[in-house]
Amino acid sequence: MATRKIKLTVQYDGFDYHGWQIQNALRTIQGKLSEAVTCLVGEKVTVHGASRTDAGVSALGQVAVFETNSVIPTENFKRAINDRLPHDIVVTSAEDAERRFDVMTAAAKLYRYTICTADMRPVMKTRHCWHLPKKLDVDAMNEAGGLLIGEKDFKSFAGAADKRENSVRTIFRCNVTKENDRVYIDTEGNAFLYNMVRNIVGTLVEVGTGKWKPEKITEILEAKKRTAAGPIAPPQGLCLMWVKY
Amino acid sequence: MATRKIKLTVQYDGFDYHGWQIQNALRTIQGKLSEAVTCLVGEKVTVHGASRTDAGVSALGQVAVFETNSVIPTENFKRAINDRLPHDIVVTSAEDAERRFDVMTAAAKLYRYTICTADMRPVMKTRHCWHLPKKLDVDAMNEAGGLLIGEKDFKSFAGAADKRENSVRTIFRCNVTKENDRVYIDTEGNAFLYNMVRNIVGTLVEVGTGKWKPEKITEILEAKKRTAAGPIAPPQGLCLMWVKY
Repeated sequence: MATRKIKLTVQYDGFDYHGWQIQNALRTIQGKLSEAVTCLVGEKVTVHGASRTDAGVSALGQVAVFETNSVIPTENFKRAINDRLPHDIVVTSAEDAERRFDVMTAAAKLYRYTICTADMRPVMKTRHCWHLPKKLDVDAMNEAGGLLIGEKDFKSFAGAADKRENSVRTIFRCNVTKENDRVYIDTEGNAFLYNMVRNIVGTLVEVGTGKWKPEKITEILEAKKRTAAGPIAPPQGLCLMWVKY
Repeated sequence: MATRKIKLTVQYDGFDYHGWQIQNALRTIQGKLSEAVTCLVGEKVTVHGASRTDAGVSALGQVAVFETNSVIPTENFKRAINDRLPHDIVVTSAEDAERRFDVMTAAAKLYRYTICTADMRPVMKTRHCWHLPKKLDVDAMNEAGGLLIGEKDFKSFAGAADKRENSVRTIFRCNVTKENDRVYIDTEGNAFLYNMVRNIVGTLVEVGTGKWKPEKITEILEAKKRTAAGPIAPPQGLCLMWVKY
């Protein structure tokens, strides 16, 4: 058993990655981080994250931990790991964690989803938004988002690949805001099912375009099946903003 | 000889491209645009640009033209070409040009170079800036930039690959501004030598870090050799903002 546990905060542009989770021969965030730390400490290390973000999803505040016997001073880890990472991943903090710290048991996480409603695709931002050149009714989307708040069974918003028995989660807020031609959907919760945020976004967009009324959310939640909700939103609009413990 | 000449304004994220100019089998902006137009009009078309931007350089206002016998209405070109382009290139306008319009004879062009001086690399912007975590003296850089204004021989700022006899060009302005941890260098001129803007930026950074005094610029211009100036700045910070005729 290793002597130390180090907690990292990590940012990444996930567009060119096959997601967080290590997969043989594919370029993944967990893979690149684990390689960088392994190379630094000289022991085989696997870095574990708070959230297994999908392919194409970015993060400004992912949290990750690793265990090591290295004697490298804690304050040196940030720079030393960053020197070994590609340009689109950066460690923003590294600190000692208690042995009992479990990265998987977050108290809250915030995901931001960005939609660009401009007519023309925004070439400099296209990797970090869903380009949807439509008029969205933000008030209606907000009303719909409000109906998701609370401890509920989100089975209708779980991707088919989610095999977990218990699909009850708690959403603390789901706000929709507009800034010029950008629409932001901020979803904060204690934990999320597979694809849950992107399925919520796809559903709120159906409300925003007027296809569905906000009240439809209640019906979708009651249906407890994926086909009741809207289509999944594309991954590149999604960003993990922070994780709290 | 084709019956029509169409003028396009084009934006692109150049980070994943081998520059503007068509090269066999490589992914280039000119190549993708020419393919898109060829596919649309059903004749072999080559699109010609105002500026042959380097690999990694982006544009918000490149100008390009092509000739065609197509009877497609002018107002349909923008959308029809965009439907055939990858996500990181977009045509923002398409209009009829006079037959005598020559895309190579711009009256003025503006290039913006972006430096990020933050300690940590900005993962979401790393494709569009030079990450240089140093304190830069913007006043000194501005003073140096001012010494470049006018009709001068810029031989010291020309890349070795520039074989043109005449290295006299006119710079209308070279401003350095700062916004939080970003430093912008805006260089407007009638025409530019190969790598000239990036060589100017690399030289202004030597002034910004205090290695050179602003007056060094006069000495560099007089030397008329590349080795007198500073190192070339990396391509991804550069963006062609507009071209005027």
